[in-house]
Amino acid sequence: MKLASLKGGQDGRLVVVSRDLTRATEATHLAPNLQRVLDNWDIFAPALADLAESLEHGSVPSFRFHEHDCAAPLPRAYQWVDGSAYVNHVELVRKARGAELPESFWTDPLMYQGTSDSNLGPRDPVPVASEDFGIDCEAEVAVITGPVRAGVSTSDAARAIRLVMLVNDVSLRNLIPSELAKGFGFLQSKPPTAFSPVAVTPDELGEAWDGGKVKLPLLTTVNGRMLGCPEAGEEMTFEFPALIAHAAKTRPLGPGTIVGSGTVSNRDPDGSPGRPVSEGGRGYSCIAEQRMVEAIRDGAPKTPFMRFGDVVRIEMKDSKGHSIFGAIEQRMEPAGMGGT
Amino acid sequence: MKLASLKGGQDGRLVVVSRDLTRATEATHLAPNLQRVLDNWDIFAPALADLAESLEHGSVPSFRFHEHDCAAPLPRAYQWVDGSAYVNHVELVRKARGAELPESFWTDPLMYQGTSDSNLGPRDPVPVASEDFGIDCEAEVAVITGPVRAGVSTSDAARAIRLVMLVNDVSLRNLIPSELAKGFGFLQSKPPTAFSPVAVTPDELGEAWDGGKVKLPLLTTVNGRMLGCPEAGEEMTFEFPALIAHAAKTRPLGPGTIVGSGTVSNRDPDGSPGRPVSEGGRGYSCIAEQRMVEAIRDGAPKTPFMRFGDVVRIEMKDSKGHSIFGAIEQRMEPAGMGGT
Repeated sequence: MKLASLKGGQDGRLVVVSRDLTRATEATHLAPNLQRVLDNWDIFAPALADLAESLEHGSVPSFRFHEHDCAAPLPRAYQWVDGSAYVNHVELVRKARGAELPESFWTDPLMYQGTSDSNLGPRDPVPVASEDFGIDCEAEVAVITGPVRAGVSTSDAARAIRLVMLVNDVSLRNLIPSELAKGFGFLQSKPPTAFSPVAVTPDELGEAWDGGKVKLPLLTTVNGRMLGCPEAGEEMTFEFPALIAHAAKTRPLGPGTIVGSGTVSNRDPDGSPGRPVSEGGRGYSCIAEQRMVEAIRDGAPKTPFMRFGDVVRIEMKDSKGHSIFGAIEQRMEPAGMGGT
Repeated sequence: MKLASLKGGQDGRLVVVSRDLTRATEATHLAPNLQRVLDNWDIFAPALADLAESLEHGSVPSFRFHEHDCAAPLPRAYQWVDGSAYVNHVELVRKARGAELPESFWTDPLMYQGTSDSNLGPRDPVPVASEDFGIDCEAEVAVITGPVRAGVSTSDAARAIRLVMLVNDVSLRNLIPSELAKGFGFLQSKPPTAFSPVAVTPDELGEAWDGGKVKLPLLTTVNGRMLGCPEAGEEMTFEFPALIAHAAKTRPLGPGTIVGSGTVSNRDPDGSPGRPVSEGGRGYSCIAEQRMVEAIRDGAPKTPFMRFGDVVRIEMKDSKGHSIFGAIEQRMEPAGMGGT
């Protein structure tokens, strides 16, 4: 089934969305919001699945589904931890600044604790105080978990995956170096994150879901030009169950924890960092990566970060070309112009 | 007023507690839980304040209040950001490992995003998989905010403070160096955090609250022996409004955001790092700080981190010696022994 939270109130209004994303039906008579569903998955999920089937058959009242009416599936979440599962991305970041990648990065995931109390909806503008902050996107896949006990095994972690969705992990690149230099991780450099219109149960992905990752390309455009289309199912060094187990090593995870993949990133077939789309490569899921490749190849980055008015779009399509999660599509805006 | 969440369900059962912490009265007929109160403070706070007055006068049904029945005031919170407002603590950490304190640390707060989806109650055991992780406490003060807009001024931030409480920011010291070396901040080294039995509105602190900090000693004992009693109102380089504004520089803060002070820490009057209580000093709010002072003075730390069975107690008393928030009192336990 596909679930969305329409805008309204702190936690949105739960609806079930048709497989083709054209129609929706109210689900608030079953549960007021998605967090409540995740708190009691075994009770609510079967009823919601029945409702989803009825929606497909046209046997329940429905209305036109508009992606721009959506809040994030979890408009506020109790936990958001974001891994860096595509180590190619991490290696590029390091290489661009002349640093070696520690060998342990291939076995011990990088992960940070992010803010998730004010998640952005898929069409919400990205409000930023200054273009000088270096506005960038990071296109990712994420899962939402049920409850996970501390010290969980990878196989048990796999069973805790409830929903899958897309992410724009908005990043303020020019704030990152000084913030990370302080040693306590990201805070101001990672403002609120945006999520796709719908979150889907893994069965909606069919063969594209193998229990640990989504085997489809993740499409990112900036102002309508393709930035990247890397395969999310390739070179994912740490699959979702491993990321969940890493997050849960010393703590339980409450229901509704969002675990991100980190920026999806592929190398070229010859092992080099990845060519831009304009040269026949798969491109990038964030501008920083394009800039790093430029820095490595040409000595200096040339693609600018985003400016006010620029629009990023992130989407994933099934083998027939149909959008699975709906699209994240966000305009960069000066803070105070009506954004969050 | 003083508010607590009795254990039960994901979000606890809201009660109003008497000023002397001996009695409580149900408040769920007003609001089901504290998060809901914070979501609609202007509606619920006056009614809860009336109930608190009725409780003081004995004009509503009440029952004996037991601190060990409490969950954290917010059993799960959408955001927990913890500053390092007592820069003496930060300077000691650095000095012990031979590193200089950057000058900017006196003007730009250190702050990390922590996990808050599974907060510990004040008497919950601290479950840890291995004593080798280096189990430590960090005694702190925290505030809970209402909604805060991105880019808030310090003076507006001060007006967003709703409640004050105590914190045990449980830390796994031996996991910290390798985790921070990865560059993305704390994750596994900061397991769930514990909070005091009650959270209080600032007016309950009387003259001990000056709008930015609590001017009282914070008492920490380990196995009944005083570890420290530093003054929370002294040497707090960044007061709560500054910490809130720092957290909100590039993001709004949702209602119910918890902002921590970091480990409360004082120097000696002569400016030296702070003597232990046994030598007439004010001691420490975490064992790591005692070990750092030992390392600086004696060449090596001698006080061990906590072992299974050890008990930490954190409390703050008013000028008449009455406990304000109730006590955090937690036993260290092997994970899987009934803890979270």
